[in-house]
Amino acid sequence: MTDPLVIFTPSGKRGRFPAGTPVLTAARQLGVDLDSVCGGRGICSRCQVRPAYGNFPKHGVTVDEGALSPWNAVEERYREKRGLAEGRRLGCQAAIRADVVIDVPPESQVHRQVVRKRAEARDIVLDPCTRLYFVEVQPPDMQNPSGDLERLERALAEQWGLAHVVGDLRTMQMLQPALRAGAWKVTCAVYHGRGLGDARIMQVWPGFYDGGIYGVAVDVGSTTVAGHLCDLQSGEVIASDGLMNPQIRFGEDLMSRVSYAMMNPGGAEEMTRAVRDAINALVQQLAVQAMIDPELIFEAVFVGNPIMHHLLLGIDPTELGQAPFALSTATSLTLWANEIDLVLHPDARIYVLPCIAGHVGADAAAVALSEAPNRSGDLVLIVDVGTNAEILLGNSDRVLACSSPTGPAFEGAQISCGQRAAPGAIERVRIDPQTGQPRFRVIGCDLWSDDPGFAAATASTGVTGICGSGIIEAVAEMRMVGLLDASGLIGSADRAGSDRLLAEGRTHAWLLHDGADRGGPRIVVTQNDVRAIQLAKSALYAGARLLMDRFGVDDVDRIVLAGAFGAHISPLHAMVLGMIPDCDLDKVQSAGNAAGTGARIALLNGAARREIEAVVTRIEKVETAVEPRFQEHFVAASQLPHATAPYARLRARVALPEVRFGGSTSGERGGRRRRAAR
Amino acid sequence: MTDPLVIFTPSGKRGRFPAGTPVLTAARQLGVDLDSVCGGRGICSRCQVRPAYGNFPKHGVTVDEGALSPWNAVEERYREKRGLAEGRRLGCQAAIRADVVIDVPPESQVHRQVVRKRAEARDIVLDPCTRLYFVEVQPPDMQNPSGDLERLERALAEQWGLAHVVGDLRTMQMLQPALRAGAWKVTCAVYHGRGLGDARIMQVWPGFYDGGIYGVAVDVGSTTVAGHLCDLQSGEVIASDGLMNPQIRFGEDLMSRVSYAMMNPGGAEEMTRAVRDAINALVQQLAVQAMIDPELIFEAVFVGNPIMHHLLLGIDPTELGQAPFALSTATSLTLWANEIDLVLHPDARIYVLPCIAGHVGADAAAVALSEAPNRSGDLVLIVDVGTNAEILLGNSDRVLACSSPTGPAFEGAQISCGQRAAPGAIERVRIDPQTGQPRFRVIGCDLWSDDPGFAAATASTGVTGICGSGIIEAVAEMRMVGLLDASGLIGSADRAGSDRLLAEGRTHAWLLHDGADRGGPRIVVTQNDVRAIQLAKSALYAGARLLMDRFGVDDVDRIVLAGAFGAHISPLHAMVLGMIPDCDLDKVQSAGNAAGTGARIALLNGAARREIEAVVTRIEKVETAVEPRFQEHFVAASQLPHATAPYARLRARVALPEVRFGGSTSGERGGRRRRAAR
Repeated sequence: MTDPLVIFTPSGKRGRFPAGTPVLTAARQLGVDLDSVCGGRGICSRCQVRPAYGNFPKHGVTVDEGALSPWNAVEERYREKRGLAEGRRLGCQAAIRADVVIDVPPESQVHRQVVRKRAEARDIVLDPCTRLYFVEVQPPDMQNPSGDLERLERALAEQWGLAHVVGDLRTMQMLQPALRAGAWKVTCAVYHGRGLGDARIMQVWPGFYDGGIYGVAVDVGSTTVAGHLCDLQSGEVIASDGLMNPQIRFGEDLMSRVSYAMMNPGGAEEMTRAVRDAINALVQQLAVQAMIDPELIFEAVFVGNPIMHHLLLGIDPTELGQAPFALSTATSLTLWANEIDLVLHPDARIYVLPCIAGHVGADAAAVALSEAPNRSGDLVLIVDVGTNAEILLGNSDRVLACSSPTGPAFEGAQISCGQRAAPGAIERVRIDPQTGQPRFRVIGCDLWSDDPGFAAATASTGVTGICGSGIIEAVAEMRMVGLLDASGLIGSADRAGSDRLLAEGRTHAWLLHDGADRGGPRIVVTQNDVRAIQLAKSALYAGARLLMDRFGVDDVDRIVLAGAFGAHISPLHAMVLGMIPDCDLDKVQSAGNAAGTGARIALLNGAARREIEAVVTRIEKVETAVEPRFQEHFVAASQLPHATAPYARLRARVALPEVRFGGSTSGERGGRRRRAAR
Repeated sequence: MTDPLVIFTPSGKRGRFPAGTPVLTAARQLGVDLDSVCGGRGICSRCQVRPAYGNFPKHGVTVDEGALSPWNAVEERYREKRGLAEGRRLGCQAAIRADVVIDVPPESQVHRQVVRKRAEARDIVLDPCTRLYFVEVQPPDMQNPSGDLERLERALAEQWGLAHVVGDLRTMQMLQPALRAGAWKVTCAVYHGRGLGDARIMQVWPGFYDGGIYGVAVDVGSTTVAGHLCDLQSGEVIASDGLMNPQIRFGEDLMSRVSYAMMNPGGAEEMTRAVRDAINALVQQLAVQAMIDPELIFEAVFVGNPIMHHLLLGIDPTELGQAPFALSTATSLTLWANEIDLVLHPDARIYVLPCIAGHVGADAAAVALSEAPNRSGDLVLIVDVGTNAEILLGNSDRVLACSSPTGPAFEGAQISCGQRAAPGAIERVRIDPQTGQPRFRVIGCDLWSDDPGFAAATASTGVTGICGSGIIEAVAEMRMVGLLDASGLIGSADRAGSDRLLAEGRTHAWLLHDGADRGGPRIVVTQNDVRAIQLAKSALYAGARLLMDRFGVDDVDRIVLAGAFGAHISPLHAMVLGMIPDCDLDKVQSAGNAAGTGARIALLNGAARREIEAVVTRIEKVETAVEPRFQEHFVAASQLPHATAPYARLRARVALPEVRFGGSTSGERGGRRRRAAR
């Protein structure tokens, strides 16, 4: 008689096993991904499976009611104490008796998929570096003396096949009481580093531990430090939060922080302390939100631009402020939390993604990990817009990277009425092409300014200024309705035909909102504001164009806007300004905080760390500062949208008025008559 | 024409090299041990050699005056600035022109021999884990960005063949300023751990560094913490010192410290802090004595018994106080100094020797390393006498180990007039067999008590008590002159014929010294003192005898007495007491502080660490507490020297009076008439 046939779904793996074989054993032998922490002792319940009964023509089997062994005492006890969903069995207890189809639900898989919203981005598969293992350790034998640690290591090798796990001093300090309290049964958290040789015991709990282990992924931005606290066993984000980078008090932008380090002895150390304190505060916040003990955070992953990277690590960033922009180190780093003064689990491991170049940091590497241009079939341009823009261009053949010094205009700085994205800031702007009247939305309110109740809804925040996405939309709308010409000149009230255009010396400004009657500021867009946006967008475009030159293309297939700011940019308006190359608008996607997502991927999947390390070494770095064509591209890009690039796809969608406000008044046409349809 | 022949002495290695080859290059190609830190750049002067001229029939060559290239500018400059001994050349500068004999003086060898006094012990060859390397690093290239650290690592690989050296966060923090201050030339201290994968940069100095690197070897005893500070480049001990183990305030002996840990919450932590503080104080003392910066101490090696080992490491020793005497870990440990709160170089590496068993610790492993029973052709018994005696027996075939609970009597504790070895303590005792009068010496004075001037010379210290070696000699002398019988009974004044024998209730005591007239104490040896010594020596002998049983021998070829105390024991007296088995007296050697020497060997030679780790796993552990024959051996050993063992070699050298003081007075013979000749 042949042995019973077992078919696992959804994997489809199948094999024959002698009657009496536990389902978990069969799964392991077939390489089916079925979780277990307790090693098949009926304690952890992670190996829950759902047997399917009946006729399965697809698999060619009929499964009888008695295909698995009846409930045993262990399963009954487990069901009583902890509950077991209808139809579920414990894979380690249920034994195979006849042909059977066994479904492994997602939550019973070790390498389960972590839900991600965007279909175009890479999947996140849970495969964390830190895992729990329950073991039974042999008690000491006076006749054959050996250390308790050595016997624990042997148990991990014999019961889990972990042949190279070692304990450190902290393990030894906690081990003896734990072994005795747990009657020689303990649960270990083991960190699996690079390769077989680097696996170490992080924590030992008496008996079976099921209290959770956690990790945190942190994006250290120049303005904001943002973190996700994740459950390392489920992959779920259990808390997300951010706080201002306190280094701002040493300088708003990156270069002013480098200057602070150069001019002030001990300045770099001060900034290092500030950001480490902020990270500790953030971790505390996250732990409080999730109601967990921060000592249960076993891992942290950090990304950031090179200057944030160096300051976090306690490395003076001076060299990054001057050519040749030498990084202290470009490779990924694995550190102990206490090396950078972080208060997590005392043995917590820190992983810092590699930097790509002196201007293209671990944040760009994280974006590359999240957006995976190296896996893309079509040619993707990824733009992470911030004070510096990091730009990636590539496909599965080849990936290029550069950074471009856009300056802080896109963040609302250096704009006359600019402000950071905060409640009260104008973030959306539309101008009616017929009436020339603007309407807008502010952060913190879902109503448009011409909706009923807007004044009341914004009474508490007011309308205080204009943030990055707001200024981009305002300038783009001005261009679209002909208040602004392609060279970036704002027309006079007369020539552009709008009484919102105010003379300011020899230039003009456009009144977006007059809050005077409500005691608020007048919000205008000045000629200087437009110039600041032009400089920023030219730098951004020129960087992207340099990469396209190097790649040998004039077009890209799709564009991903990354960065917290990227999430709020309207692709249409960005393209009207010529921030990004011409492209089908429905091929322009926002990736949200892709750097933060990349950090989270590295936290949840050890293989992803190895992948991005390899990808980074293959990325071709383009240094904009020494590329002769950068200046040329920059100048051509100063027009709105561009002096020479046709932007045919954009123009097919939206007409841009051919107004010109430069030169003598008489030779120009007014804008009003040529306003675009939308 | 054949190439010139080069012969190196003392190695005898020879080979032909094209004219113009530098001596250093020839040495390297032949595998001649010729040092260099600067990599042949004429900076470090470590490759000094002495060419020999004239006719060398032994080597079959004649060396002309012009066999080496003339002095070049680098050598001239070096000679002017730093001086070069007569006849010396820099091996990296002097080029071979004709047949030549080149002597490599010991100080130019990397693996030089470190001088050791005792011929019978293993050689110490210098081969430290931490070494200096001078390198030239490629400056950064903006077009081809890489981290400064990566370029340093490449330089170490290319210029020194160190393919797997990595830097850590501290390296990155110090690297950029050092590279620029040294104009892209730096000296690195590199720690070579276990195997190729574990080599790391500990320190980076700008330019060529020649300020020395150091290590410290520490023996953590229950009573004393003793350290040697060594120059890692020469192997020399540059300072030695010791201080009291402050844990003494928690308990005199080991078991009382374990009790303290068991009875007092936080007690183990208190003792850990105490011993770590003491070690830091000791290191400071050593650094002050040697006039070096303690931050230049890159390595420390620790040995100690299992309880000291655990307390140093911050592991609660409770389990070591009760069967089955489970060690937390038995293997060797490599730690960072800050893991155990030591203030050395911030990246300093700590090596802790392995323990052999729950009672036989890293100190015994260090003794095994120093005395190398595993390399011995004859059968050697090694006894490390302290509160616990650790005993090793073996030869190159097989090594056994045990510990035996001798208690503190051998250290002067539990002895009525006992005291620690300190100035004023009686350390030597002789009794004139004819007159029965004793004479003695005290610590701190070279005179015997019957020498003229003794009273004056000891006026400052007084004669305060009797230390371990003193009580052993006193009891042995009493046995030799018949004041004491083989069963350990002290005779009465009457029966033993000495007016120094004083009745004390039903037993007798012997007056060694009456200091009353000088205001000092009366120093006597009581019956209880003899009993305490008998218990201690029986335990010691029984342990040794157990190992001999296990080995299958009745005799050993030689005996090594280790331990600071071992250095002061008189082999004759030890054997009269039966502390050690019968053996030729000239085959009983003192090894001094063999544990400390073992620590120093492990400090100076990385391969020795691997050796002792391997040896320890092969040592057969014998647990005296569960060996049924231990009690039997213990009882038989309580006689002086022994109830059944003949001690023929001892008796051939010294007659032991056949007195008996037990039973009725009338049936016994007095001792006086049968006093032994000496």
